[in-house]
Amino acid sequence: MILVSDNLRITLGEIRRALEREDPGPIRERVRRVVAAGAAALDINTGPLTRDPEKSMTFFVEAVQGATDLPVFLDTANPRALEAGLKANVNTAVINGFSLEPAKLAAILPLAKTYDVDIIGYLLHPDGHVPPDGPGRLNAAVELYAAFKKTGMADERLIIDPVAPPLAWENGNAQAMEVVEVVRTLPDLLGFEVKTIVGLSNLTSGKRGVRAKSLMETAYLPMLAAAGLDYALLDVFHEETMRIARACDVLMSRKVFAWGDIL
Amino acid sequence: MILVSDNLRITLGEIRRALEREDPGPIRERVRRVVAAGAAALDINTGPLTRDPEKSMTFFVEAVQGATDLPVFLDTANPRALEAGLKANVNTAVINGFSLEPAKLAAILPLAKTYDVDIIGYLLHPDGHVPPDGPGRLNAAVELYAAFKKTGMADERLIIDPVAPPLAWENGNAQAMEVVEVVRTLPDLLGFEVKTIVGLSNLTSGKRGVRAKSLMETAYLPMLAAAGLDYALLDVFHEETMRIARACDVLMSRKVFAWGDIL
Repeated sequence: MILVSDNLRITLGEIRRALEREDPGPIRERVRRVVAAGAAALDINTGPLTRDPEKSMTFFVEAVQGATDLPVFLDTANPRALEAGLKANVNTAVINGFSLEPAKLAAILPLAKTYDVDIIGYLLHPDGHVPPDGPGRLNAAVELYAAFKKTGMADERLIIDPVAPPLAWENGNAQAMEVVEVVRTLPDLLGFEVKTIVGLSNLTSGKRGVRAKSLMETAYLPMLAAAGLDYALLDVFHEETMRIARACDVLMSRKVFAWGDIL
Repeated sequence: MILVSDNLRITLGEIRRALEREDPGPIRERVRRVVAAGAAALDINTGPLTRDPEKSMTFFVEAVQGATDLPVFLDTANPRALEAGLKANVNTAVINGFSLEPAKLAAILPLAKTYDVDIIGYLLHPDGHVPPDGPGRLNAAVELYAAFKKTGMADERLIIDPVAPPLAWENGNAQAMEVVEVVRTLPDLLGFEVKTIVGLSNLTSGKRGVRAKSLMETAYLPMLAAAGLDYALLDVFHEETMRIARACDVLMSRKVFAWGDIL
């Protein structure tokens, strides 16, 4: 399982101020802490970036890549910001992401083809709403894959995010369990080993303490891992969740004696 | 998921000495701690009990039931000890357990019918060896169920234990993952919602610290829970494992807003 940090978000005061001041120092410092915590890739979440989208994303990507060579996931719904990020990127970039929303099919998906990068597809309805159950997500996957195939890109460029719901939603936990089944089912449904990603932090969004959040993450992540999840997007500063992720890797390792890898 | 304590074992010095001295005090005290830790049932593991099997088991069961009304799992390969335990029992008892080993089919399985109690069936070869892979375990399940049916007992009396391997075994982790698949597959294979149990402590047997053991348990238990495991036999003094077990229950709850149940 590849652990992708969600710790670089413009909604964090530290990041927002650094972007406003065009000061790469705090971003680089945070990147170093994220890498030290065990991230294998970093999501750069700029939000929609209504003001100076190209300039802000370019600065953000350059600041991050001044401190790490790890892959970056460019996380914005703004196609101008996204393209600027793809141009600024000097390592591996992944687009995060598109969905069946018409604006994203029109302006985000084609950029994956143009820049020859992996792209995350969210299992959402065309109106942007989250399907309320597993079958709704699987239907969205079939349509999303059809739209992806039209671009002519190779299957392995696609990473599907079935959208884990907040547990605070009505039936949030039942939906979370359906997401596990969706992760397990997708390769059979689409007929190839489609890669999958789930955002763990979304599961526990809301006003709960780190301990309660971390507990639910550590119970949920192994379920996803056993279902075959490829990428987990998470807060890499949740130490327990990171330890469990490594323990899942030991359990799922192909090595003959894997347990020696755990301290 | 029903959490069954494996903390009452004759191999523990505290328990062994209490049995030798016929002093119920330390056993009752330990039972109280086990119940306080969150056990929903207690496995009473006497081993083969070569000396005074009836007397020792009777004393052990009476000592335990002097401190709790929770169900007890009578865990011995000695049919004389087992029958004494079933006679001494005044609450709910479960036999732990039989397998395809001829001696157990002949002398253990019939006691479940006689005393009208649930019985655990281990997925072992007739020679007592653990099948090396998932298909071997599933074959054993078909044969075990056939032997069980011959007694005329109702299906719901059967609890299957696919035998989680120690991670220290060659391919132990791969076998552990196959056990998850066996738990998921058994109801379809046997054609009814067969109950399942897994012994977590076996996974991490050997000379490792509690922290490493607890870590692997907390990664493995949610995988089993998501596969539909009914009973987990475990060290209830591993606090992290117990917390994760409760978090699994929240994720798999049928309540509409389940997350409020986590502190």
